[in-house]
Order: sequence, then C-alpha cells, then structure tokens
Amino acid sequence: MYDCIIIGSGVAGVSAALTLKALKRSFLIIGNKNLSAKVMSAEKIKNYPGLNGASGAEFVKIMQAQLSEGGIALTEGRVTGIYDGENGFFVACGQDVYEGRTIILATGVETVRPIKGEKEFLGRGVSYCATCDGFLYKGKTIVVVCASKEEEHEVELLASYAAKVCLFALYKDCAVTAPNVEIMRGMPSEIVGGMKVEGVMVGGRKIEADGVFMLKDAACDSLYSALEVSGGAVRTGRDMSTNISGIFAAGDCTGRPYQYAKAAGEGNVAAHSVNARLNEKDKI
Amino acid sequence: MYDCIIIGSGVAGVSAALTLKALKRSFLIIGNKNLSAKVMSAEKIKNYPGLNGASGAEFVKIMQAQLSEGGIALTEGRVTGIYDGENGFFVACGQDVYEGRTIILATGVETVRPIKGEKEFLGRGVSYCATCDGFLYKGKTIVVVCASKEEEHEVELLASYAAKVCLFALYKDCAVTAPNVEIMRGMPSEIVGGMKVEGVMVGGRKIEADGVFMLKDAACDSLYSALEVSGGAVRTGRDMSTNISGIFAAGDCTGRPYQYAKAAGEGNVAAHSVNARLNEKDKI
Repeated sequence: MYDCIIIGSGVAGVSAALTLKALKRSFLIIGNKNLSAKVMSAEKIKNYPGLNGASGAEFVKIMQAQLSEGGIALTEGRVTGIYDGENGFFVACGQDVYEGRTIILATGVETVRPIKGEKEFLGRGVSYCATCDGFLYKGKTIVVVCASKEEEHEVELLASYAAKVCLFALYKDCAVTAPNVEIMRGMPSEIVGGMKVEGVMVGGRKIEADGVFMLKDAACDSLYSALEVSGGAVRTGRDMSTNISGIFAAGDCTGRPYQYAKAAGEGNVAAHSVNARLNEKDKI
Repeated sequence: MYDCIIIGSGVAGVSAALTLKALKRSFLIIGNKNLSAKVMSAEKIKNYPGLNGASGAEFVKIMQAQLSEGGIALTEGRVTGIYDGENGFFVACGQDVYEGRTIILATGVETVRPIKGEKEFLGRGVSYCATCDGFLYKGKTIVVVCASKEEEHEVELLASYAAKVCLFALYKDCAVTAPNVEIMRGMPSEIVGGMKVEGVMVGGRKIEADGVFMLKDAACDSLYSALEVSGGAVRTGRDMSTNISGIFAAGDCTGRPYQYAKAAGEGNVAAHSVNARLNEKDKI
C-alpha cells in the first residue's frame, strides 16, 4: 500500500512526485517513459520561470534526470480504472493492480472526444484496455480506435486474439501489419447496440462488431465515475482536492490555462495536500 | 495606463510578467533588481520541475535573462499603497505613481510581524516610505525599524532630515554611519500615542519619538485595506482573483505551501485571468 498513487507523468505528475519525495512519502508514479507526448512536442518554452527558451524535449530530459536522481522509478502503463478500497483506492493498470491511500490525478486533457455511446457501453462491449479485455474477443470481430502510434502494440495484441480488427487510426503513418487488421477511413460517430455493443456507425453506415476498444488516454471521469467534472475539467479546490475524499487532481485535467507553470504548481500543491491529509489520518 | 501592474518580482511576479508578455499585454513589474531575497538565498532547488538542483542565485540569473530577452524592464522600488482610480488603480511607489487597469499582488510573505499599534497609527506618525514622508520630520526625533541591509540607504535619507534617528536594525552588520543615528538594542513591542505617535515601548521603557518608520516589505492588506485576508494570506479563488474586482494575487502572499512551483503556477494563472478580465471589459 502506497501513501499515494500519481496517475500521469506530465509536468503536474512529476512535480507531485518530486514534492512527495521531499516529504518522504511512499508513492507510485504511473505514466510514460517519455513523460508526456505534449511536453515532448513543444518547440520552445518561453513563459516558464527557469527555462529560458528550452525545447520540450530538453524539459523532459531535465525532469527525467530529476526523477532518476531522486531515486524515483516511473511505472509504465495506462490506468484503466480506480476503485474504492478499504483504506484508500485500487488502481488498475494493465493486468496489475496497485493500492494507494490517496490518488493524484494528473492525466492531462483528453485529446480525443468521447464517441456517442462510449460511456453507456463501457463494460458492455466498450473497453480501454487491450491487455485486460482482449482475450474476451477470441475469434470475434472488433473495432479499435487508436489515438497514437504508442498504442500500436496494443492493436497487434488485439489482432492476435480477434478474427478481424477494423482499425481507425487517428494519426499518420499507421504501421500495424497484422493480416487480419483492416485500416478504415473516417471516425465512428456512435457506438450502437442493445444490451451489448453490436457495432459502430461511420458516415451513416453500420460496421458490425462484438466489441469496441478505445486506445487513448482515459478521461478522469471514466477512471472514477463519481468524480465531479465540469466542462470536461475535474473540479478542485484551492488545495487541489476533488469532491472525492482522498482523490486530488493537478495539471491540465483541472482545466485551463493549459500551461506548464500551472501544472507544476498544482502538482506541488496536491502533494502537500496529500501529505497534510495523511498526517491528519495518522493522528487518529 | 498599463493593462496590469505586477507588484513583486519573485517567482510569482516573474511568471505573471512572462505570461502577460506572451499575451501581448502592457504591464509594469515593480520589484528588486535581485528579483527576490528569498530565492537568492536558496541553496539547492530540488522539487521544481526543470531545475535539477540549481541554486537560488542560478534560478534568479535565468529569470533575469528571461525578463531581459522578453524585453521586460523591471521597475525598482517599494510599493507603499494602492488606491482606486476611475478605470483601475493608482499604485504609489516611492515618489512615483503608476496607473493600472488591473493589479497582480505578488508581494511574498511578510517576514517581520506587525508591531502593536502599527496599523492604528498608519498615517498618524507611522510610515512605510522614507522618500514619501521623510521631509515631514525635519529637525524631529524618529524611530526607524529596518528589516534588511537593502533599506539602509533609506535610513541615511531619514537621518538627513531628522534631528535624531533611533534605529532598530533587524539584521547583522548594520553599516549606517550618519552621526545622528543611534543604534538601539531589542525590538519595539508597541507604538504608543494619542492622536499621533508619541513613541515606542522597548522592554517596558518608552522611547519618545515624533514618527515611526517601518522599512520592510508591506503586507498586502496594508497596501489596500479592503483586501480580504485570512490568517495573513490573501484569499483567492481558483483563478487567483481576490475579493476586489481587478486585483489578483499569486505566490506566497496567497498562503502555504511557500513553494516556487506554486508561485510560478499562480503567477501564470493570474496573468491569464487578468487577460480574460480585460478581454471582457474591452467587449463592453
């Protein structure tokens, strides 16, 4: 059981991790080894105090050094759900489950908007996780929406189970090679079905499928449905607490402005708030 | 008339300035050429994303370069008051007055606690500004509480007016040399008087004086008395707005944690909120 599980390795997540380390708390930071695709793609950072025109890649390199010199190991993976535990929360990440007394959500902003029906059919044919649910579709037909190149290995995994994969790749130069993968045009507008998924609508035409995989970073409220969200942003107080006791949020997922300095500040504050919360609990 | 006047040149003030510049707003940043005594004195910064163990002096150097490369000139001085104007606010700084449509307070935390009587006698013998009020004490006896070496030139200025200066220096190696300055021990516990200041109490003994100068960074609520303050911290919303329309706050003056990342984030958010406010006003 960790004191805290940080979900996301962008500027907010790294800031929270460095501060929890300084506060001598045990924690896990779950993310991507490149930390953040968004930061990596920044050309020149000018309005972040302390970085005078550095590139995003340089910023990532410095943060990676800070993590490594702080003895902080990043856990690679994509979190697919948060569940209540007796003394905190369970965090599902691929086939692993981690337990934390508190959570800091630093998941960034969803770049792919949810499709009509996505939330309704979640668990009834819609899945965010190839490693968790792929085996359920042995010999079946599935639709896969893949948001970035980094998720292509999950498409290959799904293709190893399914009889047929209809792939919507939302990026250029798709390099999936499995013979049973058909690369589709357009983007599904709706997921349809009865009790379970029966297919997706694309340009007015129905493509039949037994399951739909959305391979993209999950929105915060799809990770924990009782989380209060307003206009796509997690609602937080000045101490970065959410409406759920023990869950904090920081960075782009809490809303605009989408800026590194804001993310760094909120990650820092969230870590201090986690520490204060745990100090309180330990007193009782 | 500036779009915004930023009061304070620590991390929060610099962050606000860099972001207002990026947003193409006109503004003034008032502070110290070393930006921040607090940052300058930091030995090693470890939990600020992007600075891997840099010293405070190195951080200041980078921020100075960012200001200079952004074409942002720092206005040196100490702000002594904020007053309502027709379309914004007047900011008194030494003998100059600047006008801004909005204000960002980034004044840090007061390191010297107010003395009993300080607020009550403000304007009735208590002053924060040697250049503004020194001439009122020609040939008189004054008490001066000086918080740091940087204010010594103001003590010398006061000594050039007054007949006698009783100086309480709150730092080591006081180097004031004027012959009419007596360096005192201890610290005044109270400012006493009737309609006007009559002296200060030190260790149960009264020292008679016609005026008391407090040479220290002013607390936010002494700059603008209607500002809502709670436990010494300016109350702000998630957008860094205060209870006064057009006045925003960022950094240590908004409360704990006193951390550079929080200051950078809040300065950034305050700048965006100023921009949003002005965009709204311009529409009307």
